[in-house]
Amino acid sequence: MNKVPLALSRRQRETPFEKRVLEHKPKGFSIYNHMTLPTAFKSLEADYAHLCKHVQLWDVACERQVEVAGPDALRLVELCTPRDLSDMRVGQGRYAPLVDEHGGVVNDPIVLKLAQERYWLSISDSDVMLWLKGLAVGMKLDVRVFEPDVSPLALQGPKADDVLASLVGEHVRSIKFFWFIEEHIAGVPVLIARSGWSGKGGYEIYMKGSENGTLLWDTMFNAGQSFNIRAGCPNLIERLETGLLSYGNDMTLENNPFECGLDRFFKLGKSAEYMSREALERIAAEGVGQKLMKLKIHQNKPIPMRSTYPVYHDDRVVGAVTSQAHSKKYGAVLSFAYVPTHLAREGQMLQVCTDEHEKLEATVCEECWNPVV
Amino acid sequence: MNKVPLALSRRQRETPFEKRVLEHKPKGFSIYNHMTLPTAFKSLEADYAHLCKHVQLWDVACERQVEVAGPDALRLVELCTPRDLSDMRVGQGRYAPLVDEHGGVVNDPIVLKLAQERYWLSISDSDVMLWLKGLAVGMKLDVRVFEPDVSPLALQGPKADDVLASLVGEHVRSIKFFWFIEEHIAGVPVLIARSGWSGKGGYEIYMKGSENGTLLWDTMFNAGQSFNIRAGCPNLIERLETGLLSYGNDMTLENNPFECGLDRFFKLGKSAEYMSREALERIAAEGVGQKLMKLKIHQNKPIPMRSTYPVYHDDRVVGAVTSQAHSKKYGAVLSFAYVPTHLAREGQMLQVCTDEHEKLEATVCEECWNPVV
Repeated sequence: MNKVPLALSRRQRETPFEKRVLEHKPKGFSIYNHMTLPTAFKSLEADYAHLCKHVQLWDVACERQVEVAGPDALRLVELCTPRDLSDMRVGQGRYAPLVDEHGGVVNDPIVLKLAQERYWLSISDSDVMLWLKGLAVGMKLDVRVFEPDVSPLALQGPKADDVLASLVGEHVRSIKFFWFIEEHIAGVPVLIARSGWSGKGGYEIYMKGSENGTLLWDTMFNAGQSFNIRAGCPNLIERLETGLLSYGNDMTLENNPFECGLDRFFKLGKSAEYMSREALERIAAEGVGQKLMKLKIHQNKPIPMRSTYPVYHDDRVVGAVTSQAHSKKYGAVLSFAYVPTHLAREGQMLQVCTDEHEKLEATVCEECWNPVV
Repeated sequence: MNKVPLALSRRQRETPFEKRVLEHKPKGFSIYNHMTLPTAFKSLEADYAHLCKHVQLWDVACERQVEVAGPDALRLVELCTPRDLSDMRVGQGRYAPLVDEHGGVVNDPIVLKLAQERYWLSISDSDVMLWLKGLAVGMKLDVRVFEPDVSPLALQGPKADDVLASLVGEHVRSIKFFWFIEEHIAGVPVLIARSGWSGKGGYEIYMKGSENGTLLWDTMFNAGQSFNIRAGCPNLIERLETGLLSYGNDMTLENNPFECGLDRFFKLGKSAEYMSREALERIAAEGVGQKLMKLKIHQNKPIPMRSTYPVYHDDRVVGAVTSQAHSKKYGAVLSFAYVPTHLAREGQMLQVCTDEHEKLEATVCEECWNPVV
């Protein structure tokens, strides 16, 4: 499958940075929110090694924003998530799983509070705008829901602070995790947030208006030259090591937050109205039959995978691997997998069957990855 | 861009037919409703020539179904479209543009009436399920909205009737355009509709359940062997010649039905409640500033295009090409383009600027394609 070219048209929206991205010759692309997203440049392994040491500029314009503005803005956003947003302050972001009326996960955005009655949801890969618009129209809320012309770049890696400080000023170093400030870079209006889809630190720069994509990219890339900057993208190895979930891969509308571990981002019982209250309280009371766990597969080389792989226990299929990548650091293939709750305990041995029909031994890891035992 | 491979994971859902499709070595893939869709096999031109003469089997599983079931099912579907659905009968399909409260096009599905209180919307590329679910939750409608496990295959081309009659029986020949029947093929439950995204005739076979994809594919492919069947896919040249619009390419939420010509599928003033009534009546009264027209570009070879190309009149940009393909039959590049209403008349000469910075002459065609003059 890796050899099949991606055929592009207007429907797979071009990002404001795509022309520059292509000059760096990405090895693969994905489509995310109807927009292109590179998946590797030199190779997953080389990109990973560079990200761990240096700094990378990522075109994540596909992290589209859904703007919710108006008197009922907070009410609508609160309605969609069990996470309490009532104490958010302007300039703050908060990771908030969106959950439907049955407790199914719709998306897992970062909610940014831009003003008292104005929010952006920086979304993963589903049409959240249609979901929120539907609710707003159905409830006759006094709110506007739309996709503003905003395209994020991410600056990720241990040298990200130095690059951005050299470009914008030392004050960017004091931006707190998930908070943001309004700035200009090369005259282009941006939000700068301390966030990003890696565990290596850095920023997301939300560019307002798509006409200056090349200017902003060039300015940031040039500022990074003395820090060994490269074009990069969310890295599969890094996200598995760090434990970042991917909507559509690791959880879908079929999963509730307790199954996939998103329940650690909220406490049941917030005071605002939210549609999943009854469903989530019932699920919490009854417990879940499966849990998304870290599963270390005892194989010291990459495993090709199209979609999922079955997980076995006592020769029966009991679950599925949803994402995986080989980690040189851990000498194993790290994965996320749904496993029955009674087997979701650290050290539990399971097997994974791949396309080559091997049964590979695998160990459930509760909280963090441990060296292969 | 054509050389960049598509990187796949579970998030870009695998179709039940994908394994077979890959054996036919498609030249390109797109992503559509978070699922793979092949875009060419031998080449656009060779696929086109074969489709015009013979019969092809298309994996269009990405035409996902949104099921709306329950006492309020018709009310919800009617709410979303200006097209009157009140007289639909069980077994009938109807093309119905979905329009939001401002008149913006959300999607352009075929609505299938399965039972008195049960509909499928066979959608183009946007998350209509979230839109309808949002409305249903917001309005507290007595309805279930979900994506059933249904995956369509299309059998398209002048020999489609012969293939399907040989496989299922002569009665399939009498299925009327956009109507459907319930059937089994090789024991697999299917709906068979006379429809499909080409002008060459044929059927769409809605497979219920994804576990028998290979069996159904093989059965249909084998039945077509003596008719020179090939694996195929929606063909860009054919759809431009036939005049089929593509959501996300030729119209988006930014466009109303009058601009993009979808108004020919409804009459304002249906009796059922629908959310775009006020907006559409206002737009109809005021008129639109631009119209999606057929624009014949006077160039007798293919033009590469990433996204859109500007349309010029008197050295000013006045519009944009949204889709285009070179047609040997017409000796020109056929396109859809938004042009100002006062220039949207047959024979109007315009220019199109491409990446090679040529200004190519182009002629507006009102209703049908004519030979280059």
